[in-house]
Amino acid sequence: MAIDHLAILAPGLLGASVARAARERGLAGKITLWARRPEVRAALREQAWVDHVADRPEEAAARARLVVLAAPVDKIIELDRLIAPHLRHDAIVTDVGSVKGPICAAAATHDRARGSFFIGSHPMAGGAVTGWENGSAGLFENRVTFVTPAADTPEPALHALCDFWRGCGSTVVTLAPERHDEIVAHISHLPQALATSLACTLAGKDGQWRHLAGNGLRDTTRIAASDATMWVEIFQHNRDALLHALAAYEEELAAFRHALEQADWAELRARLERGKQWRDGFRP
Amino acid sequence: MAIDHLAILAPGLLGASVARAARERGLAGKITLWARRPEVRAALREQAWVDHVADRPEEAAARARLVVLAAPVDKIIELDRLIAPHLRHDAIVTDVGSVKGPICAAAATHDRARGSFFIGSHPMAGGAVTGWENGSAGLFENRVTFVTPAADTPEPALHALCDFWRGCGSTVVTLAPERHDEIVAHISHLPQALATSLACTLAGKDGQWRHLAGNGLRDTTRIAASDATMWVEIFQHNRDALLHALAAYEEELAAFRHALEQADWAELRARLERGKQWRDGFRP
Repeated sequence: MAIDHLAILAPGLLGASVARAARERGLAGKITLWARRPEVRAALREQAWVDHVADRPEEAAARARLVVLAAPVDKIIELDRLIAPHLRHDAIVTDVGSVKGPICAAAATHDRARGSFFIGSHPMAGGAVTGWENGSAGLFENRVTFVTPAADTPEPALHALCDFWRGCGSTVVTLAPERHDEIVAHISHLPQALATSLACTLAGKDGQWRHLAGNGLRDTTRIAASDATMWVEIFQHNRDALLHALAAYEEELAAFRHALEQADWAELRARLERGKQWRDGFRP
Repeated sequence: MAIDHLAILAPGLLGASVARAARERGLAGKITLWARRPEVRAALREQAWVDHVADRPEEAAARARLVVLAAPVDKIIELDRLIAPHLRHDAIVTDVGSVKGPICAAAATHDRARGSFFIGSHPMAGGAVTGWENGSAGLFENRVTFVTPAADTPEPALHALCDFWRGCGSTVVTLAPERHDEIVAHISHLPQALATSLACTLAGKDGQWRHLAGNGLRDTTRIAASDATMWVEIFQHNRDALLHALAAYEEELAAFRHALEQADWAELRARLERGKQWRDGFRP
């Protein structure tokens, strides 16, 4: 069932990709956008995948069945508070933020039009490239999108949101916001911390060494090129879960180093084989 | 100037790729191979890029101008000792091992035919795939190959070897064996230790989490799937340099964790930006 009216607030790479996927795949009737900066609103008015650009967020959200808050993590809560009283009686509000616990907890406290609901989303898409200009209809294909309902989320609203993400090409995984944050701390935020730290370690050595490296270093550090502002926000909002994941990693690395110090080759081999077995289990 | 006779001993992925590159690019006249296992020798005799397969390493090496020891790091020293007295008066022996200090030091002690020389090589190519069957003529294209001459290496021999690697498509970087080992400890062996440890950390959590990850985790852990036997040998031969690199990394990661614990967002931003600047400096 298509959404009759989709609103996307503060589109960046992910928000613009949602709009383009919805248009290309016929997931939504009218598509309304709002952006904070007037010059972005003017540019969005020229896009074929946009029907209407509103000047205020409440105005953009007011008539939508599905509202996607595509702002940085910091701004999602503020936007939800602003639009919540002005929503349609059957509106679903979601977001695309990388952490879910703090956002879902804040959303639950907002003064919201009766019959409307906030349900968190997190598409595992995007990367080093940012900006609404780089959005693409295929960004969510074969990507996991997490959907994090609250205890009081009604089933029909949850199903409608999951259907929308599946329509965008995603595999939908539904779980509690806190569980989501624990998992992404390990599979996304920890790798970022490690890649950044490896890049910083090598930046402290001869800067020319990077030109001598093979694909191993290139791949291992690729995400170190990600946007710093976005990651500071993620670290701020998922600090405890990331500290927990970092502690587990530091323990693992110290055990590796200890085995190397002790020339315990059987232990190092066991670690290499354990890591290989885990990595070989990735889907192609 | 083409090599009149090229010998490759114990070909795996790299050795077979050297032979195929030499044949395709006209870098060598005759190409002779030797492999330890009789069934591999039989299979190699069927390959269009092989002229002759010898039954003993000394026999394969005896008439060659350039001998490439393509064995695992552990076996290179043994092979060089075996062939050294039987070489041509103008022979150059090289290898493709990932560490250079111990190999070059041992090679300098071998009883070698007068006029012949050992010069270490390390092409930064290959990865998760292994085996001579997977060799390809293009493996060295746009890859760095390190060449590590000794203090008494004559210029003409060094030039001939560098020309050969350039002919294979490599960018040649010449440096001392110990300096090579320090650099690869940082740009190759450290990333392997970190990727393996990240894979082990996540293997200790829910094994299904890997299926939820985006490309970040996929790239960061790709090399964790590398061959364990090869890496144990590399760690054995470059232990001190890797311990040094690991210590620098652990310090960097502890500083990152400390900043996160202290909610020092300015410090975390500075680290993210420093890492990004370094990574953005990679050639495309």
